[in-house]
Amino acid sequence: MTLDVPADIAEPCTRTRIVETAERFFRQIGYQKTTVADIAKALKMSPANVYRFFDSKKAINEAVAERLMREVEGAIAAIAARKGPAAERLRDMVRTMHGMNAALYTEELRMHEMVDAALSESWHVVHGHIERKSAIFERVVADGIASGEFAVRDARLGSRCAQLALLRFFHPRMLVECAGEPEPTLDQQIDFVLRALGHRAGA
Amino acid sequence: MTLDVPADIAEPCTRTRIVETAERFFRQIGYQKTTVADIAKALKMSPANVYRFFDSKKAINEAVAERLMREVEGAIAAIAARKGPAAERLRDMVRTMHGMNAALYTEELRMHEMVDAALSESWHVVHGHIERKSAIFERVVADGIASGEFAVRDARLGSRCAQLALLRFFHPRMLVECAGEPEPTLDQQIDFVLRALGHRAGA
Repeated sequence: MTLDVPADIAEPCTRTRIVETAERFFRQIGYQKTTVADIAKALKMSPANVYRFFDSKKAINEAVAERLMREVEGAIAAIAARKGPAAERLRDMVRTMHGMNAALYTEELRMHEMVDAALSESWHVVHGHIERKSAIFERVVADGIASGEFAVRDARLGSRCAQLALLRFFHPRMLVECAGEPEPTLDQQIDFVLRALGHRAGA
Repeated sequence: MTLDVPADIAEPCTRTRIVETAERFFRQIGYQKTTVADIAKALKMSPANVYRFFDSKKAINEAVAERLMREVEGAIAAIAARKGPAAERLRDMVRTMHGMNAALYTEELRMHEMVDAALSESWHVVHGHIERKSAIFERVVADGIASGEFAVRDARLGSRCAQLALLRFFHPRMLVECAGEPEPTLDQQIDFVLRALGHRAGA
């Protein structure tokens, strides 16, 4: 006898397997060359079954992009939630995000296609990420204002300006384009941003 | 009788006419669709004659890009050379550069191809522009340090960090990508940058 697994329990798992398999293909042969048929074959299923979960390759890419961005958000949220000075947490968040993005975009060249597709065709997914990471940055700036560590008054504006000032170290296209520009270093730019936030050490 | 114009006098003028004609084509039908034959025909000369001045369409594009960038440099150099507080000059330089770049990159959609080609294939030309504009910014920051208006000590580092913090308002690709992001505004970001430079009003 075989045990029937109800479809509504089986599906989240199949969905995840499709996304994981797609990500592996994107890393290995690139977004453009990967077909839905490749993904289906690797999972020993029909393309029609893949289309039950995602109506296009673009939809699969959005799920891959979102998963990668959620990992970054998780990493910086964990730092944001720590105790200690807001400036130190901000610096650590920026370094972590830069490290994760740089590894993905400047080292894994095959992933550029996937990133380019997401930036060009799925801006709403990227925008969701920007909003979520901005909320995390804003909370830490607000902590720093509350503790007297930062002199700025508007946490939302301050954190948005700070992120914009660090764009070169976060944005996939800028990371690639500026890879050959050694200065300012990430830490120099973080020092600049902390000064702009009116950082008073030891407050 | 005809008057022979020596080649070495006639050539700079022909070169300029080729660049001006190319720029007009790039604006009207885009870089990709423009051919050297189109440019030659508009100038009533043979393609071979165009190739005497530029060995490829890429070389023509580099000359067009350089001309546009020199215009921006000229505009900000004029502001930098004025009297008055360094912070005001910096603000004016940034606004001017943003205005000129935004007009070109976000309004003239056909020019994107030319800009993309320059960014992808002719980085040394873009880099030259970045170095020249950076030198202008650095002089103004140095003025502000000398007058006690800015608290930072290193004019080179301060001006580089400032420009990086304003990348979203200068970079052609970022201007297009962030066009729908109303905040922070340019003036809010300039305020942020001036604080980071340790601006003391009325110094």
